[in-house]
This record gives sequence, C-alpha cells and structure tokens, in this order.
Amino acid sequence: FFFDMATRDSGGTEHVLPQERAQATFDVEKVTNLLDGNEKATKRRRWFIGHNEGMGLTDRYNMRREDLFKKHCSDFITIHKKFPNFKPTNKDVQWMSSNSTMLGPFGNHYGLFCVTIQTHASEEQKSWWLPKALRFEMIGCYAQTEIGHGSNVRGLQTTATYDKGAQQFILHSPTLKACKWWPGALAKLSTHAIVYAQLFMEGKEYGLHSFLLQIRDHEHKPMLGVELLDMGPKTGTGNITDHGFMRLTQVRIPREFMLARFQQVTPDGKYIKTRQSGTDNIQYSTMVVTRVSMVAGAGAALAKAVTIATRYSAIRTQGFVDIRSSAHMAPERTILDYQTQRYRLFKQMATAYAIYFMGNRLFELSSTFTEGVGSSDSNFAEVMAISGGLKGLCTLMASDGIEDCRKCCGGNGFLLSSGIGALTGDYLEFPTAEGDAAMLMLYLARYLIKALQKTQSGGVLTSTCEYLNVVGQPGFSLEAQRSHIESTATMFANTSELVGLYRYRALRNLVMVGSDLQQKVLDGMSMDDAWSETSLKLVDAARAHCLYCILDTFAQICASIQDAAVRDVMSQLCAVFGLAHIRDQGDWVGVLDVKALKMSHEALSQMLGQLRPNAVALVDAFDFPDRVLNSTIGRFDGKVYEALYEAAQRSAFNKHDPFEGYEDVLRPHLDLEFLKRGNVVPTASKL
Amino acid sequence: FFFDMATRDSGGTEHVLPQERAQATFDVEKVTNLLDGNEKATKRRRWFIGHNEGMGLTDRYNMRREDLFKKHCSDFITIHKKFPNFKPTNKDVQWMSSNSTMLGPFGNHYGLFCVTIQTHASEEQKSWWLPKALRFEMIGCYAQTEIGHGSNVRGLQTTATYDKGAQQFILHSPTLKACKWWPGALAKLSTHAIVYAQLFMEGKEYGLHSFLLQIRDHEHKPMLGVELLDMGPKTGTGNITDHGFMRLTQVRIPREFMLARFQQVTPDGKYIKTRQSGTDNIQYSTMVVTRVSMVAGAGAALAKAVTIATRYSAIRTQGFVDIRSSAHMAPERTILDYQTQRYRLFKQMATAYAIYFMGNRLFELSSTFTEGVGSSDSNFAEVMAISGGLKGLCTLMASDGIEDCRKCCGGNGFLLSSGIGALTGDYLEFPTAEGDAAMLMLYLARYLIKALQKTQSGGVLTSTCEYLNVVGQPGFSLEAQRSHIESTATMFANTSELVGLYRYRALRNLVMVGSDLQQKVLDGMSMDDAWSETSLKLVDAARAHCLYCILDTFAQICASIQDAAVRDVMSQLCAVFGLAHIRDQGDWVGVLDVKALKMSHEALSQMLGQLRPNAVALVDAFDFPDRVLNSTIGRFDGKVYEALYEAAQRSAFNKHDPFEGYEDVLRPHLDLEFLKRGNVVPTASKL
Ligand SMILES: Cc1cc2nc3c(=O)[nH]c(=O)nc-3n(C[C@H](O)[C@H](O)[C@H](O)COP(=O)(O)OP(=O)(O)OC[C@H]3O[C@@H](n4cnc5c(N)ncnc54)[C@H](O)[C@@H]3O)c2cc1C
Ligand SMILES: Cc1cc2nc3c(=O)[nH]c(=O)nc-3n(C[C@H](O)[C@H](O)[C@H](O)COP(=O)(O)OP(=O)(O)OC[C@H]3O[C@@H](n4cnc5c(N)ncnc54)[C@H](O)[C@@H]3O)c2cc1C
Repeated sequence: FFFDMATRDSGGTEHVLPQERAQATFDVEKVTNLLDGNEKATKRRRWFIGHNEGMGLTDRYNMRREDLFKKHCSDFITIHKKFPNFKPTNKDVQWMSSNSTMLGPFGNHYGLFCVTIQTHASEEQKSWWLPKALRFEMIGCYAQTEIGHGSNVRGLQTTATYDKGAQQFILHSPTLKACKWWPGALAKLSTHAIVYAQLFMEGKEYGLHSFLLQIRDHEHKPMLGVELLDMGPKTGTGNITDHGFMRLTQVRIPREFMLARFQQVTPDGKYIKTRQSGTDNIQYSTMVVTRVSMVAGAGAALAKAVTIATRYSAIRTQGFVDIRSSAHMAPERTILDYQTQRYRLFKQMATAYAIYFMGNRLFELSSTFTEGVGSSDSNFAEVMAISGGLKGLCTLMASDGIEDCRKCCGGNGFLLSSGIGALTGDYLEFPTAEGDAAMLMLYLARYLIKALQKTQSGGVLTSTCEYLNVVGQPGFSLEAQRSHIESTATMFANTSELVGLYRYRALRNLVMVGSDLQQKVLDGMSMDDAWSETSLKLVDAARAHCLYCILDTFAQICASIQDAAVRDVMSQLCAVFGLAHIRDQGDWVGVLDVKALKMSHEALSQMLGQLRPNAVALVDAFDFPDRVLNSTIGRFDGKVYEALYEAAQRSAFNKHDPFEGYEDVLRPHLDLEFLKRGNVVPTASKL
Repeated sequence: FFFDMATRDSGGTEHVLPQERAQATFDVEKVTNLLDGNEKATKRRRWFIGHNEGMGLTDRYNMRREDLFKKHCSDFITIHKKFPNFKPTNKDVQWMSSNSTMLGPFGNHYGLFCVTIQTHASEEQKSWWLPKALRFEMIGCYAQTEIGHGSNVRGLQTTATYDKGAQQFILHSPTLKACKWWPGALAKLSTHAIVYAQLFMEGKEYGLHSFLLQIRDHEHKPMLGVELLDMGPKTGTGNITDHGFMRLTQVRIPREFMLARFQQVTPDGKYIKTRQSGTDNIQYSTMVVTRVSMVAGAGAALAKAVTIATRYSAIRTQGFVDIRSSAHMAPERTILDYQTQRYRLFKQMATAYAIYFMGNRLFELSSTFTEGVGSSDSNFAEVMAISGGLKGLCTLMASDGIEDCRKCCGGNGFLLSSGIGALTGDYLEFPTAEGDAAMLMLYLARYLIKALQKTQSGGVLTSTCEYLNVVGQPGFSLEAQRSHIESTATMFANTSELVGLYRYRALRNLVMVGSDLQQKVLDGMSMDDAWSETSLKLVDAARAHCLYCILDTFAQICASIQDAAVRDVMSQLCAVFGLAHIRDQGDWVGVLDVKALKMSHEALSQMLGQLRPNAVALVDAFDFPDRVLNSTIGRFDGKVYEALYEAAQRSAFNKHDPFEGYEDVLRPHLDLEFLKRGNVVPTASKL
C-alpha cells in the first residue's frame, strides 16, 4: 500500500476491532447459538451458507442490471442443482435468502411457484409439474396482483371462462386494470405462471381460482395471446427482478390446468369442492409461511445494518476529546462514545435481537400446520393474524432501523460500497410486497377486537392473547390492571417489570378502542364506517399488542438462559428494547407519569453505558460472513479506509477519463489557453 | 389505446382529479402566492422554471449514469449561458434547484465553488477567477471533507506548507485519511478545486485555510501530483454526481493562491489578518445560505412527494365499500378515504407547508448578512444556530415523510417511474451532506443552553428565543408557565392554543435539560462529559425549539391571511401539523394529560375530515409541472394506468428478449420438448 498505515491517525485501523472484542464479557458463540435456536442449528446454518462460498459479488455495485440478472440465474441454479433431493425446512429457506449476496427472480420460482403447486395442486398435477420445476426444466412465477388490484385480492379482474364444448378455460384480461402487474420473474425468466382469475361458468361467478399457464415457448418467446413486459427499474439498486406486466387475450388452457386440490370443474361444467372439512384454512398456509419468514428476515436484514454501523462506529473517530483544542492532530472521540450515536445503534441492535427471537417463536407456532399436509389447527386464525401484524410491524421497524443505521455512518453510508447504502434501498420492498404493512396491522386489529368480544362474552383466549382474559373476569376495571412499576431506574432495568408495562399498555389500547367502536355503533354509525373512523387507534392497538409479544418473547428467552454472562447481556439488551420504544413512541400518556418517564430515561442511559464494551461482540454474534455483508466499512477486520479506497478504484465511472461526452459538452466552453498555463498567477495581459 | 378506457373500472381515471378540484373551497392561485411569498414572487418563479422547458427527462429512469451525467452538463450550461449577467437571489437559486429535473455536479460549481470565491477571495483574486468560472471557462469544486474527517472540520489533515524561497505553498496529503473524499464534481468535471488545508509556516500551525488549485490540465488530464477517482455508485438512482477522491503529492501553488480576503501570507512568510473587526462571522455566511436553502428545499422535496401520493390516493380505489360483498366488481373505496391513509398524507402535506413558510422566514432573517458584503449583524449567531438545527430537523422530516408517502403508494411507489420511488433515494443525501442532522441539532442545543444562561443572568433574548425571557423573571416557575389549554376538541383546533402548548414544551425541555447539566457539573463531572451524557435530551430540546418555531411561523402566516376561505384551510392545515406531531412524538408526558390527549386526537380526526375535499387542490397549489414531478402516478391529468403501462414499455430491460444470457444460463436446463408441446395435458408417456 502506498501509505504508511501504522496508526489510527494515518488511517490504519486494523487493531481496533480486536481490542473491542477483547473487552467482551461473554462468549460470542453461545449468543450465536441462541439466535439460531441451538448449537445444532448454528452448525446447520453454517453448512448451508457455506455452499454460497465463491459466489461473492464484490463488484455488484458496479454491475449492470443485465449482468446481475444473469449472474443471479447462474449462481442460483448451480447451488440448487447440487442437492436435487434435499428438502429444506422453512427456516432453512429463510437462512438461505438472508445470507444470499443478492435476491432475484428465482426466489419467486422456488418460494411462490413451487410452493403453490405443492399446496394447491392435486396429486396428479403435482406429478406433472413439481419434479420438472425443481429440476429447473420449467420456471414459474406467481401472478396474482393486477394493475388495478393489490391489497383487495377479491377484486381481481382477470377472467377464466369455462368453455364446456372445448373443455377449456379461457384466460383473459378484459381491461387495462385487469392486466397482471408486479409478479416477479414474470417478464423474462418464467416459462409458466400461476394465474389468479375469476372463474365464470355459464355466466355465473365462482370467485377467485388459480390456474397454470405456459407463458413462453421452447424458444423462450411469449406464447400466442400473451403480452409480457418488464415494468422498469425500481427503488433499490440491487432490485434486478423482472417484475412483469402480462396481458392475456383469450388464452385457452385445458380444464385440467386449474389447480385442483380444493375444487374441480367436471367436464360438463359442474363445480365440486374436494376440500375436506377442517382444512379450509390450509389454502392460506403459504401466505403464513411467507410472512413468518419475512419476520425472521426482517431481523436478519436489520442485523446486517447494525453489524456494519456498529463496527464502523467503533472504528470511526470524529471530534476532539477536548473541544477547545487547537492542534489539528489532537485526540478524538470514537463516535460510538457519543450518547446519541450509541443510543441509535443499541436501539436497533436490541430490535434486531428482539425480532430474531420473535421469528423463532413464530416458526415454532406455525410449524404444526406448515409441516403436516391437510392438518388443521385451532391456533391457525391467531397465527395468521399475528404473523400478519408482525410482518407489518417488523418489516417497518427493520426498514426504518436500517435507514437510521445508514445515517449513523455519515457520508459513507451513502455509498453503495458501504453495503448499508445498498441494503437500505434493497430492503424497501418488504413492507409492501406480500401485504402492505398498514393493511396487515388493521387485519390483526380486526382479530384482536374479535378476541376481546370473545372474552367479554365468556370465551377463553390462549397463546399471545391470553393476557386479554382478564377482561372477561367479573368486575374488570382497566385501572386495577395498571402496572404500578416503582419509579426507580433499577426497576426500569428489570425486564419482567417492563413486560408488565407493555402488557398493560396493550390491554389499555385495545379495551379503549373497543369501547370507542361500540360507542360509535351505539350512536348510529354503521360498523364499516365506525371501523374506518377508528382505524388510527386500531393500528395503535395492534402495534401495542405486537410490541408486547416481542418484548415478552425476548424476556422469556432471557429467563431461560443458563450462562450468567450471556443472560446478563441479553437482559440488558432486552431492557434497551423496552426502554427505547418507550422513549420514541407517543402513547405512554396514561401509563407512565413524569417521574416514571424520567426514571425510564435514566435506566436507558445507564444500560447504554453497561452495554458499550460488548457492542462489537454483540454484532459479531449475528455471524454474517464478509461475503454477505459486502461492505467496505463493516468488514470483520475493520480495515475500512483501505477498503473505501479500493472500492473507489473499482468504480465503473472511472473507466473513461475524461468522462464520456467531455469533448461535446464541456471542452468547447473551457478556456484551454488559461488551463494550459497551470497553477500560475495570471498577468494582467493574460486575464 | 388498445383498451376501452371509458370507466374507472376499466382503468380510465381521467375524470377523477377534475371532480376533486371542483370540490375545493378556496382559490388555488392564492395559496400558491402564499407559498411563494406573494403574487410577484410566483410570477418570477414561473419565469425561472420556464427556462427548463424542453429539458424533460422522461427517460431518465432508464438511462446510464454516463448519459445522465452528460445530459446534466449540457442542460445546465445551455440554461445558464442564456443569462450571463443575471445575478439570481438565494431564493431564486433554491427555486431553480427544487424545480430541476435532475441534480448534478454543476450545483457544486455554482453553489459552492463560485460562492466561496465570492466570499473568501480578495478583490484581485475574484477578478482572476470569478468571470471565468461564471462563463464555464473553468469549473470548480469545494474540497473540504477528507476520508478521515467530515463533521470535525478542524481535524482535516491536508497540509499547506509555505516554502519561503519559492514563494509557494506545497499542498500535500500526508496519509490516506488526509485524502479528499466526497467533494462533488471533483472526480471528473472540475478543472479547479478550493482545497482546505492546515497552514504550516516554519513548523508552526496556523489552522485551516482555503486554497485554489488547478487539478486538470487543458486536455482534462489530472495535473502532476494529483490523483483523482470517482468514489463509486451511491444510494439514489439519480445520484450521478462525480463525488471524488483526491490524493495530493507535494503539489506547488503560488503564494497568491491562498484565498485572501480575510488573511494573507507575505512573501517573507508573515501571517497578516486583513479581516475588519465585526466581520468575523461572515466567513460562515456561505454555510448559512446553504442551510437556509436546504430548509426551503426540504419543503419542496416533501411537497413533490405529497403531490404524487395525494393525487394517486384520490384516484386509486382499493377495498369494497361493503366488505362482505362477493361480486368482484362491487364498488370500492378511494384509498384517500381510509383514515390511516388520510392521516399519513395530511400530516406530510401540513409538514411540507410548514417547512415552506419556515424557509421563507429564514430567507428573510438571513437576508441582512447574505446580501451586504462585509456587513455584520448581532442576529448572526442565532440565525446560524437556528438554520443549522432547522436544516437538520427539516431534512430529516422530509426524508422520513417522502418515504412514508412512497409507502402510501403501495407497490407502485417502488417503481422509479412513479417519480416518488426515485425521489426517496435521491433525497437521502440531504440529511447528511453539509452537516449531519444529529450534529447540527447538538450545535443548536449548545446555542440554546447559552441563551438560557444569558437570560438567567439578566440578559434579554430576541427573535426565535424571545419566549425564553420568562426564565429571567423574578420568581420564575416552570409550572406557572404551563399552558392550560381547555380539554375540548375545539380548543385543540385553535392554532394559537397549539402554539402555546409547543412553546411550553420547548421551554420545559430546555429548562429541564439545563438543570440536568448543571447538576452533573455540580456533582463533579467535566462539562464535556456532562454534555455527552445529556445529549439525547439536548437533541430533544433542540427539536422542541424548532417545532415551536415552525408552528409559530405557520400560525402567524395564517393570522395574516385576508381571504377567509384561504385562511380557513390554512388554519386547518396548521392545526394538523401541530396535532400530528403531538400524536407521533414521545415527549408530551407532563404537558398533556389523558383527557387532553384524547381531545387532541378527536380534533385531529375532525380536521382530517374537514380537509378532505381540499386535498387535491392543496397539492396543486405547490405548482409543480409534470416535467419536474416526472411521475406516472402523480401527473396532473390523473391518467395513471395508461402512464404506468407506457413506462413499462420504455423499460430498458425490455430491449433484449430472451434476456441477455438466456442461452448460457437457462436454456441448457429447460425441458425444451415439454415446452414445445404448450398448454396440453401431459400423457403418462410424456411426463
Ligand atoms: C417488490 C414487489 C414484489 C412483488 N411481487 C409480487 C409477486 O410475485 N406476485 C404478485 O402477485 N404480486 C406481487 N407484488 C404485489 C404486492 O403484493 C402488492 O404490491 C401489495 O399487495 C400491495 O398492493 P398494491 O400495490 O395494489 O397497493 P394498494 O392496495 O393499492 O395500497 C395502496 C395504499 O392504500 C392503502 N390501503 C389499501 N387498502 C386499504 C384498506 N382496506 N384500508 C386501509 N388502507 C388501505 C395501503 O395501506 C397503501 O398505503 C409485489 C410487489 C412488490 C412491491
Ligand atoms: C452526497 C454528499 C455530498 C457531499 N458533498 C461534499 C462537497 O461537495 N464537499 C465536501 O467537502 N464535502 C462534501 N460532503 C461531505 C459531507 O459534508 C460530510 O459527509 C458530512 O459533513 C458528514 O461528515 P462524515 O461523513 O465524515 O460523517 P462523520 O462526521 O464521520 O459522522 C458519522 C456519525 O458520527 C456522528 N458524530 C460525528 N461527530 C459527532 C459529535 N461531535 N457528536 C455526536 N455525534 C457525532 C454523526 O452524527 C454521524 O452519525 C458530501 C457528502 C455527501 C453524502
């Protein structure tokens, strides 16, 4: 290297992270095991992500979409063809996607197309298509959303009209609004699509059904009657997926191509339900699996951002220790030692941990009905509601948190090569795709209001809603439930006291919005209107419920830890999660008074100090390889300044010098004579 | 068009916005005048932005960085060469950049390079360089930040060593950390740079000074001893600027190339201050101007996002009016009619208006010392502090707000062609560039604490700090200052009552953090440490002060409006601003009790209903031409679905079909025989 890199002043920062690591009070590997679930799970995860080795994408920030697309296809097929008979669990799949260096259209083929065939096709249909799809002999996508309809799925307008004579369905886009819009892998990659359409037979409407349609032929040209377009570039520079537009003009498919696990149309046009009783909900199980994965994925995405920002903040110094010093080489503070910076990072770190644990719990809660085919479970409605609400909240917390971590990196967070600059944009799809966050929170609120009504009329609630049972008890009063946490900083550092506060807030929010709703209906409003007028508060109630669940889960994990050092640091992090979301959120009036709030801030401030020595170790525990972080400023060895310089050298914009167009747009204006003279004082005659 | 677009069901939405506009209760043009300042200002603004006509960038979302860079250069020079002798005001410049279709490196040449010569160079130096720079005969950039130092400017490490014998300065980057890093226009465009460096003479350190350096020769090749690199791609797909790395190796410039308005080095190496007393602060005036512009610019950027999201939300329908309806063509709700959506949009709309008015006030406050050269002003310190704090807060509110507006557009907000997808990424530089937001808030806090101490020791404060004077009054008690707003929804709709609440909160935050600091110092902490330990609360106090100023400014504007219809709608919007920032922020405990909070929510909910008919007219008033919005879903005529389809047709990714690489990476895996058969039921033998 052309510079002496011996000291921190010169830019040599190699020694910093080892020093930080030496201060840690706990065994990092144990925390990694905790995040994965257990030791065996860590091993399994490492085995998985090991197969991506050698598929780094150091240059991805400078690559064209076309080349990234090609590389994604090639890498994905190479990895997955290695294990043709291996069936990964849902958690395995989440690990793989959280550790891939780039997401892309094949996620839709595996994660949506194959999964839908698995869950919606009859056994015969599966035998036709599934093996081919898993061997990449056909590639598919999931075409549900249309230009006109996303959230309101029931309003989709593509029609599937049964032609009894030909024994065929005619798939058609009657309007512009009915054209498919957004399905990933639709525009360029797929040979087939699962198409959602409204079934019509003899003029009668039978509702939404899914059909298999071949959309490209053996030369990969669009089939007759199928118009395909890529929708154009998207937010997030890594978003290479070929989200597509598809217009169908009277395309015919055989009667046998309606996915037939749950219903069939007979040759003579009779509609028969083949679903067994008790399996009604299984239709939605794909959706639940996806949402559970997205919760866990939110934790992982935020963890990546926190890893980068924390390492960089431990290395970066900025601002003189003595602010009055006049020598430009006076000692400086590490930015992680500023309270504002420390708070922002530990808050996001705690949130990432909290979401990880919540994700693990959701995987468990949903395992009963995602593994057994056709199984039914009374918990299903709850898991569906809570996983939706958590998908909404956690993806929002992650996208906001990633962006705040990015800002914590100052200017360098703005460079894609920082890793975190790219992550911010790339993550933005998640609060929207597979269900808009605001919508899902309202959906959870609907479930919670029903639960409230159930307990009010004597029913008994379980699982995440168990705490609502008090409402059904005779003589219930909200005030009596109030958690009287003693106003000392010590009490606010206590995780179970914090859980009590969150539980009370959740209860309070729900009971109050429930009576608001009731009052509006009593006053003569329709239920739909009352609902709409109350929706801000309903969202608040759903959020309070989710945050209670997350904190409660985190606290339970803490309580179960054997190793004292690990338990201490996890409990501190758990408290930071609780205290930070007290600090930054609006609805604590009525729960905490002035003094309590002051003490909660005090506790938070102390906790931030206690956690400081463990900062780097706590992000190391997330265990992301450098290849996955793909970050100049967040790499494990901490050599950030060399890495930044090297990344600049790789910038594609350096290829041309002078820049393309210089001759045309700039040169004619410049004073070339003046420039020829160089750095000399102009004489009067030569001005 | 190939589809019938007659009705909303088919995707024809041309009739929607005219209907919305017909409902407006006020004259849009009058509100536009209010935003601009007055009628004349609107005219002037339209005259300006008219000159960009024909420089649309409809295809920019599909263009390569290289081509965008070239187009930016060509457009910028074309427009500015038209008016060689025109001197725009600071506000003019802000209008121009808020209405340009793309920001780029020339902003650095005009906005930083020329301005610094104007303010820091001697008259003689100006005559050498300024006319050339304004005629594009030389192009410059502003090279302050280094790899190692951004916020802590005094810590910069580039050295300028005076060689008395040669009468030259030797500019040098002694370490990697000392290399320049981030200056826009440095890597590719500029022929010259203003270089900040530590001045050394005979081993003695004289602090930071600025120097002019030619960095490229007449063939646009880097000069000897100058290494230049583009830093690589950045967040924000429109960010084409050639932010650069520059390493200097013993580069010599004549003694006369130190910018010499405020000091000189004599031939024999004497350091002489040439600054007149009373002009000390003028050094920072460029910075203040930039920050004031960035406040106003934050309003404009947020206004663009709100315009797009509001128009789209008035057009988009989603969700059946009767949620139990089973027909897929049942009537649907306009999404702007969902309370959650309405709240999010009106909150951002109110915030955009609030920032506009605050920006105008800041332009006025700063006009005395930005216009007169060498003038001094006792207000300077305050304007410097408040414009910094507001720059921090407003750019943060804008970037968060733009992103929330983007989310309000569902999936389509994720497309760059929506305009809002591109805006989110492109805007992200502003909370960081020209001073990190967190840093600037702390800087304001420092000023406020001093102001507090001043009034406590009998001094008198003016302008935005006037309200703090009560603290100096004998027998001052915080409790007695408490604003006892009567807890009814009507009172919460009253803007001056709201201003009182915000004033009290600001006072309370500041007084409390002030005594915290004092206590810590009394307990034996050093002031630097006490400061660091309190910085979260200091940031809160600075934010509360800024929000009070913004709300107060807005309320004063409302009070001054003659036209009753305009006054009504502006007052509602002002109240929404105040109420929304009550709803979403954490520090109202101790200011509002449970009942008051409930009433504030009630008032907010009512206000959202009252504003509903004016939604589209209120964003029309921002007066952004379609060319500037460059948005499929936010265009004035509301034909969103046609526009989305057309944008998809323009996607560069559609050029190749099959996609580039298909033959290599996909074809070998596909079952071509199977695909050749098309949509037919496989027979057993052909599986
Ligand atoms: C990156 C990406 C990938 C995708 N991949 C696929 C795919 O592979 N296959 C596929 O079929 N689709 C896909 N989608 C589509 C996705 O599922 C939809 O974008 C999503 O469901 C939201 O629908 P929408 O875009 O129509 O938004 P809208 O439903 O129009 O929502 C717009 C706004 O209205 C609000 N709103 C809507 N309804 C209500 C209500 N009832 N109450 C309150 N507020 C409401 C929302 O909160 C939002 O703010 C993808 C989308 C993205 C962005
Ligand atoms: C798009 C863009 C354009 C730019 N253009 C130019 C240009 O033309 N010319 C030029 O010279 N520079 C330019 N810059 C550089 C810019 O001015 C710096 O990035 C900015 O000042 C922040 O400095 P930094 O990046 O070193 O961040 P740092 O100072 O390293 O900050 C990193 C983190 O530390 C925190 N922090 C730092 N100091 C303190 C403190 N004392 N107290 C509490 N927290 C602290 C910050 O809040 C932040 O979270 C540009 C930057 C960007 C992103």
